[in-house]
Amino acid sequence: MMPLNGNEGIALYAQVREAIREQITSGKLKPGERLLPEEELAILMGASRMTVRRGILDLIDEGVLYRRRGVGTFIAHRHIDRHHNRLTGYFESAAEEGFVPRIEVLLREITGATLMVARALNLREDEPIVRVRTLRLADDQPLAVHDEHVSYRLYPDILDAGIETRQLWELLSERGDPVRRAVQRVEARLAEDEIARLLGVEEGAPILYKLRTVYSEDGRPVEFAICYNRGDRYSLTTTLTR
Amino acid sequence: MMPLNGNEGIALYAQVREAIREQITSGKLKPGERLLPEEELAILMGASRMTVRRGILDLIDEGVLYRRRGVGTFIAHRHIDRHHNRLTGYFESAAEEGFVPRIEVLLREITGATLMVARALNLREDEPIVRVRTLRLADDQPLAVHDEHVSYRLYPDILDAGIETRQLWELLSERGDPVRRAVQRVEARLAEDEIARLLGVEEGAPILYKLRTVYSEDGRPVEFAICYNRGDRYSLTTTLTR
Repeated sequence: MMPLNGNEGIALYAQVREAIREQITSGKLKPGERLLPEEELAILMGASRMTVRRGILDLIDEGVLYRRRGVGTFIAHRHIDRHHNRLTGYFESAAEEGFVPRIEVLLREITGATLMVARALNLREDEPIVRVRTLRLADDQPLAVHDEHVSYRLYPDILDAGIETRQLWELLSERGDPVRRAVQRVEARLAEDEIARLLGVEEGAPILYKLRTVYSEDGRPVEFAICYNRGDRYSLTTTLTR
Repeated sequence: MMPLNGNEGIALYAQVREAIREQITSGKLKPGERLLPEEELAILMGASRMTVRRGILDLIDEGVLYRRRGVGTFIAHRHIDRHHNRLTGYFESAAEEGFVPRIEVLLREITGATLMVARALNLREDEPIVRVRTLRLADDQPLAVHDEHVSYRLYPDILDAGIETRQLWELLSERGDPVRRAVQRVEARLAEDEIARLLGVEEGAPILYKLRTVYSEDGRPVEFAICYNRGDRYSLTTTLTR
């Protein structure tokens, strides 16, 4: 990090901010790397520590940097912002949202519905369901784990085609059972055990937890998904009207 | 916790689950309290530890219980699920969503716009803005901290009325500048410093972080809010169409 040039028209903290940003956009600082401590940056850039701090806070606000309590300030991974007013498939919207999508199937099985799955899909507990667990990657970095469920009785051969590139509800649509509507609920949770491992984050990292039920044209719940999204890489944007 | 009665029609883990649920709905176990360890419950209820675990997992799925890694399993606070397809005020939708709302104003000031606020409201950095920080409570428990911002130049006397019961955009609407649309982005983050203290959670607790820009009828951004919602008490539900 070089001393500031002393551009007179621009506030010092904004110069600090843009100097750090430049290091990131030019690739000199890479995602996951730690920023030098504020005191060192202040000396290197010839600015006060308060000035450096304000510049850093702006970049944290923007999501360019993030702080880990007691550890330091780090360069953030690129954030994938998904626009969720319409129900779209992962591959369908990736181009528009500017990332390269990939899906790895981790597990496919026929098992009994847990209480949560049974309630969502209007089934009895333990009724057979098809469950698919996938890892979704964006630009080859883990983004989310999805557990998708459909009734085995209604869709016994759903696993036969295409789960590497489509969600179960997309397969239903292609087979003549078009979906029209989804209800999704999001919460913030902490990563635990296996989910942390699959997403490549520490236990206790923030997770955007999403429950989604997809409904057919005639209003039946046909697919239920539990989605664990990496908090540091995933956000969800929606538009509301008054 | 009493031994199970041995109702033959119902799977043992479901009996365990409903017995624990009954303790909670009857008030014998209260939000924030810790559940007995699985081994002890197993002995008390005369069930295997695996059976008890499956019953508990169902209740965690439902959000009735939550786990804290290395500490134990706890009774969850009642979750406030906000329905966000339409832009509604906190007081406006509380009745429908079934909680008693309260807003405490923590801070009201005229200050300079940070980069993030300036970008959202189409202002220059450091241009004067009105900033209001509020604590939102649901059933007298902290739910969220909001930082709301509007241009001071455009709305110099916005602070004169009603910020205890309304958001800034609601005040704008009442003053003849109706809002029509909001764009909001949500992420999962961890609670830090002051936000953790205000929300009554530990540092590192999960936070649903929300950035919201509200637009006037003619498409100008008029209010920008940064919202920190308690992950253990707040969720957001939206409906998507295909």
